[in-house]
Amino acid sequence: MHSLKSFHHIIGEAFAKASFAQAPSQLYEPITYTLDLGGKRLRPLLVLMSCELFGGEIEHAIYPAMGVEIFHNFTLLHDDIMDNAPLRRGNKTVHQKWDTNTAILSGDTMFVIAYEHVAKTNPAMLPDVLNLFNDTARKVCEGQQYDMNFETQPNVSIPDYMTMIRLKTAVLIACSLKLGALLSNAPKESADKIYEFGIELGLAFQLQDDFLDAFGDTSKFGKAIGGDIATNKKTYLFLKAFEMATGDTLVRLTNYFFDKEIGLQEKTEGILEIYRQLKIDEITRVEIENHHSKAMEILNSFQFPAATTTEMLKLMQEMLGRER
Amino acid sequence: MHSLKSFHHIIGEAFAKASFAQAPSQLYEPITYTLDLGGKRLRPLLVLMSCELFGGEIEHAIYPAMGVEIFHNFTLLHDDIMDNAPLRRGNKTVHQKWDTNTAILSGDTMFVIAYEHVAKTNPAMLPDVLNLFNDTARKVCEGQQYDMNFETQPNVSIPDYMTMIRLKTAVLIACSLKLGALLSNAPKESADKIYEFGIELGLAFQLQDDFLDAFGDTSKFGKAIGGDIATNKKTYLFLKAFEMATGDTLVRLTNYFFDKEIGLQEKTEGILEIYRQLKIDEITRVEIENHHSKAMEILNSFQFPAATTTEMLKLMQEMLGRER
Repeated sequence: MHSLKSFHHIIGEAFAKASFAQAPSQLYEPITYTLDLGGKRLRPLLVLMSCELFGGEIEHAIYPAMGVEIFHNFTLLHDDIMDNAPLRRGNKTVHQKWDTNTAILSGDTMFVIAYEHVAKTNPAMLPDVLNLFNDTARKVCEGQQYDMNFETQPNVSIPDYMTMIRLKTAVLIACSLKLGALLSNAPKESADKIYEFGIELGLAFQLQDDFLDAFGDTSKFGKAIGGDIATNKKTYLFLKAFEMATGDTLVRLTNYFFDKEIGLQEKTEGILEIYRQLKIDEITRVEIENHHSKAMEILNSFQFPAATTTEMLKLMQEMLGRER
Repeated sequence: MHSLKSFHHIIGEAFAKASFAQAPSQLYEPITYTLDLGGKRLRPLLVLMSCELFGGEIEHAIYPAMGVEIFHNFTLLHDDIMDNAPLRRGNKTVHQKWDTNTAILSGDTMFVIAYEHVAKTNPAMLPDVLNLFNDTARKVCEGQQYDMNFETQPNVSIPDYMTMIRLKTAVLIACSLKLGALLSNAPKESADKIYEFGIELGLAFQLQDDFLDAFGDTSKFGKAIGGDIATNKKTYLFLKAFEMATGDTLVRLTNYFFDKEIGLQEKTEGILEIYRQLKIDEITRVEIENHHSKAMEILNSFQFPAATTTEMLKLMQEMLGRER
């Protein structure tokens, strides 16, 4: 079994060796720039770890694993245009550094490159691999659409929100794990079960991200606290608070949300105070723990030898254990 | 053998029966809208005709044929954002009717739907089919990038231009034909040769489009004459004129191109006059004929029975014979 560290190394090397620089440079430079920004490479790690867990050869999974990561970065690139985001991983977004047209077309090209990598797989497994990837890509687009809809939609429920993050975030985590299973020729039932594990892990991961945005340690989280509050993002925390608040608390919460006259610091502190008052932090932790438990239950049901799941548990810790 | 008319009918029915309407409607309505705008459906026709030419069953080619058409419409949707085009086939473009974000994300989703259709093919042929489709999609993106580069690039040569239209237009025509061959299990050599036929046909088709924009009959062409001249598009005609013009003619041509004070009618008439003076119309016709002849030479080299190519020749007439 490879260690988590050596999986990290393998993925890092694969991207370091790959060259995306071609003509025309105007098209490919933004792609190289985007992929050089790095990131945690969680999704390709999950592909390789799942592959090994099911007894496959990770050599055959490296290209599809890269494909998933390239796809993920493509979605970030296009999402950043739609969200008008200035920064990504502390650097200028492509549409800011170049322009919107460049970001659209380089993104489209990255999408093709993702498919090229996914296609580099055992032909016997290609139909299943491609169907899974197509299904995932479509769902991620649907998730992004729901996320954009929520910005102007007055009544977003917690179930609506869970549907959105399932599509936008969890299915790609699940797809990564299922890809590893398919590439190892694991039984269909196992592939479907590891997908469900991925869904629960992905939901916990996104809720943790929401949580850290409000209650994380800035120095460790790597992002400013309260970014979601500042941008009126309808996160799990906000929607839960809105669902639970009554009387004066509801009035205050609504004011903080709608009143543009209120300064950012006052707004952030005010909303965080309401969150604490309503115990939204604890409620969110419980919800994260629920999905984490469901994930663990599914993982345990495989009855993998304990030694083989150690590194997967470490990665889960890396994904969910930050600041907890 | 099916007639051209019945091929048209089969493609029309396939799109009429297909439903792209799903939730969320904000994502799928622009896709339905785009695909309902119609168009000549040339590319799926080429897939089916090529398939039958090589003795394949067109039933197995319908989904990939639709995939090519959906991909083509996706590229138009994103190109229209980049070109800030207000109209497509006489109707509002998606980014005008909705907004840019909708056009980006609906386009991305159409791209996935294209892959879903391409994937619905005989698993034995899927690796070759997918590689061809990926290669084509990447080249079309490169072609669009060169086309955008040309807008600000001072010295665009005729070979540069031919490279651009080969990538942006001809490879998808060629891909359609090769797909038909692959899906019929034609020998690799035949598949490669029909691709080259498609390249020549595609180059002739794009040059014809350039020609008609300047010298077509508005009532039959379906577009206003001089659209390319009005937008300073560096077409084959313009680049050839710029290459050939000397002395006073060069000064006038450059003025028409750069001087924003000159009215549109004066500019259009002035440039058309220079085109006629330099015999750009004849030169372009000769160039179209060159590519048409090369295409015919390749097609004839297959030595298909005459009866089987009749409908392909009719389609070529439809593509190239307009106004000639």
